[in-house]
Amino acid sequence: MKPSLTITSESHAYPVYIHQGLRHSTYELIEQSLMKPASAYMIIADETVADLYLRDVLASFPDNRKPSVALVPSGEASKSLDKYEELLTKTLEARLDRQSVIIALGGGVTGDLAGFVAASYMRGIRFVQLPSTLLAHDSSVGGKTGINHPLGKNLIGAFHPPSAVVYDSEMLMTMPEKEWRSGFAEVVKHGFIADPPFLQWLQENVPSFSSCSLDTINELLKRSIAVKAKIVQEDEREQGVRAYLNFGHTLAHSIEAESGYGTITHGEAVAIGMVFALKLSEQVYDIDLQYADTIRYMESLGYHLSIPNQCDSHELLNRMKIDKKTHNQKVHYVLLKELGRPELVPVDDHVILQLLTGGVGNK
Amino acid sequence: MKPSLTITSESHAYPVYIHQGLRHSTYELIEQSLMKPASAYMIIADETVADLYLRDVLASFPDNRKPSVALVPSGEASKSLDKYEELLTKTLEARLDRQSVIIALGGGVTGDLAGFVAASYMRGIRFVQLPSTLLAHDSSVGGKTGINHPLGKNLIGAFHPPSAVVYDSEMLMTMPEKEWRSGFAEVVKHGFIADPPFLQWLQENVPSFSSCSLDTINELLKRSIAVKAKIVQEDEREQGVRAYLNFGHTLAHSIEAESGYGTITHGEAVAIGMVFALKLSEQVYDIDLQYADTIRYMESLGYHLSIPNQCDSHELLNRMKIDKKTHNQKVHYVLLKELGRPELVPVDDHVILQLLTGGVGNK
Ligand SMILES: NC(=O)c1ccc[n+]([C@@H]2O[C@H](COP(=O)([O-])OP(=O)(O)OC[C@H]3O[C@@H](n4cnc5c(N)ncnc54)[C@H](O)[C@@H]3O)[C@@H](O)[C@H]2O)c1
Ligand SMILES: NC(=O)c1ccc[n+]([C@@H]2O[C@H](COP(=O)([O-])OP(=O)(O)OC[C@H]3O[C@@H](n4cnc5c(N)ncnc54)[C@H](O)[C@@H]3O)[C@@H](O)[C@H]2O)c1
Repeated sequence: MKPSLTITSESHAYPVYIHQGLRHSTYELIEQSLMKPASAYMIIADETVADLYLRDVLASFPDNRKPSVALVPSGEASKSLDKYEELLTKTLEARLDRQSVIIALGGGVTGDLAGFVAASYMRGIRFVQLPSTLLAHDSSVGGKTGINHPLGKNLIGAFHPPSAVVYDSEMLMTMPEKEWRSGFAEVVKHGFIADPPFLQWLQENVPSFSSCSLDTINELLKRSIAVKAKIVQEDEREQGVRAYLNFGHTLAHSIEAESGYGTITHGEAVAIGMVFALKLSEQVYDIDLQYADTIRYMESLGYHLSIPNQCDSHELLNRMKIDKKTHNQKVHYVLLKELGRPELVPVDDHVILQLLTGGVGNK
Repeated sequence: MKPSLTITSESHAYPVYIHQGLRHSTYELIEQSLMKPASAYMIIADETVADLYLRDVLASFPDNRKPSVALVPSGEASKSLDKYEELLTKTLEARLDRQSVIIALGGGVTGDLAGFVAASYMRGIRFVQLPSTLLAHDSSVGGKTGINHPLGKNLIGAFHPPSAVVYDSEMLMTMPEKEWRSGFAEVVKHGFIADPPFLQWLQENVPSFSSCSLDTINELLKRSIAVKAKIVQEDEREQGVRAYLNFGHTLAHSIEAESGYGTITHGEAVAIGMVFALKLSEQVYDIDLQYADTIRYMESLGYHLSIPNQCDSHELLNRMKIDKKTHNQKVHYVLLKELGRPELVPVDDHVILQLLTGGVGNK
């Protein structure tokens, strides 16, 4: 099988395979992707996902090459130093060496965690992503891996691109509606920052999450990953254009923190953040971005696009200012000069505050 | 001041400054080495070394740029996941951001630990080495950072080269004799694998550790680091020639593990390992390497070059075989075809065993 995409990182290029049923060919696809053979494999899997798909993945391996398996409880809490240590111990006990390969089976949580284990085990061994959520189309490419610290999310980690991404779109079929909505916000984001016609395509082809075909999902994944790939290829280590991927995220992080992590999904917060960033763009550049139909479309998919009532405007602004992406006094915001043309712009506090108190989402 | 050496890593080039008294110019030397300015500094220091030199290092910083400080208990036990987590918390509490710089003040333990904190804090920030031991001339260049796992040494870590190395040779003056001996074995190793005339130079210029001048030490550091630099520049990620730096280490690791870590210093074990590797080389290649004068010289410096009595030959061989550098059935040994010409060679078990039981060091 030919890769749907190939992504070039600082250290190597890696294929992204996208199609339904690929879990049944995991072994074959991995083996054909590796430049040097693997001495052994270990699968790190989300417990929920393992219940559903681990058997199929394992069945694709020949008897004398069966991977070891380590399960991880579902949920963000697994991205912890404790789980990290536990997995390193399991990796050692499984006798993985420098030529071995770790396979992450699950969503962004599993990918980030297993990726950091791979990045730091014996100073870095290879790993492969088998993403099982829509959100993971974003997290599985680009090379960011990591875990959380009690004082903040994703503060411990490494850049460590995978050796391959094997995306079985069929696995998405068992994903809860809420997870669709979480991942789909990043799809829309990719449209806004780099591929406006894609926004139109989504409206025509994805009228609801439950009704779209596997072919549509394959196409959606490919097109959305292509946007991310193009940006990270240009700027792997977030010195410049990679910041555009934070479109909608400045406010989103503040909302997530203010309302307590878990209350609102990351994608729901990003959706609210994007609407805010669009309004801010119109005000800063004095333009009309014509995004009303996308807003209506997102609402039809179940997104609530106004800032949750319990979030105080001043607190939201404060949180933006302590966000790790803020370099100096002013908040740096990703704005759109036009659809598909992002810019990183310092914005005055009072402008943000005014728009925050003015309400969002009711264009 | 001009760097004594400049080392090129995969990601960037970094200067190595070597001279007595450099701790008084730490700030100035770091600032002139950084490509982009540092938003803030944090020093991670060995407690023993901090007592002696931290004040001088801090005094070199202007009042509005004073670094935060985190102390680490002296000793190998600090290279643990617990200390790692504690330091990440301190780094966060000190509000270091992606533009900040961590400074490691101490020996190889501090450098390895602080280096891994820097490698993984926010997916990697810059760090600078202020080595305070002779051994650290080896550990501070080359980019290997890491900590220990209860199941083995240096199993968790990253390749993360420093942004500068500031080597104040005066700090070595307070180092215990035993630490001189530990670090000096790596100096001799560099002579054996890549610079045989250096072995002669050492015998002439370093008759004892207590008697040599700062100028001699500066020269020694520069010449020994130059060997390591040349090798790691050719092969940063240990795919090929970097393995030559393991000369003497295959047996050394086994001896350290067999006699219990801490009983014998790493360097003392390396010295024994080198003598063994020299004998093995003579046997495998059927040559005479003429190293008797170096042996006598090392003995005059206080090295015991025979394998400790409590180490069983079969156990030593077993340990070599589970060593992470062994790829398949045979042990891969770094041997010398002639002085200065290393090769990585698979050696039959019975050849190793025969030489082990035959005794070592009594040429
Ligand atoms: N590395 C990056 O560049 C990057 C980018 C974006 C997000 N992230 C990270 O990704 C994480 C979020 O990822 P996520 O949204 O995939 O969360 P997740 O991995 O927690 O998965 C969401 C939930 O869906 C379940 N699930 C997963 N696949 C399923 C399937 N096929 N069928 C049924 N249930 C399934 C999981 O058990 C889990 O409960 C966050 O930690 C975030 O920081 C990383
Ligand atoms: N990263 C690498 O490439 C690499 C290479 C070789 C060794 N290492 C690592 O280096 C470590 C050993 O380093 P080390 O031998 O420097 O050990 P160390 O850092 O523990 O220092 C040895 C002892 O000397 C004391 N000390 C240090 N500087 C002193 C000074 N100037 N005056 C008085 N006392 C001083 C310390 O407090 C400590 O007790 C090991 O953990 C090893 O794995 C790493």
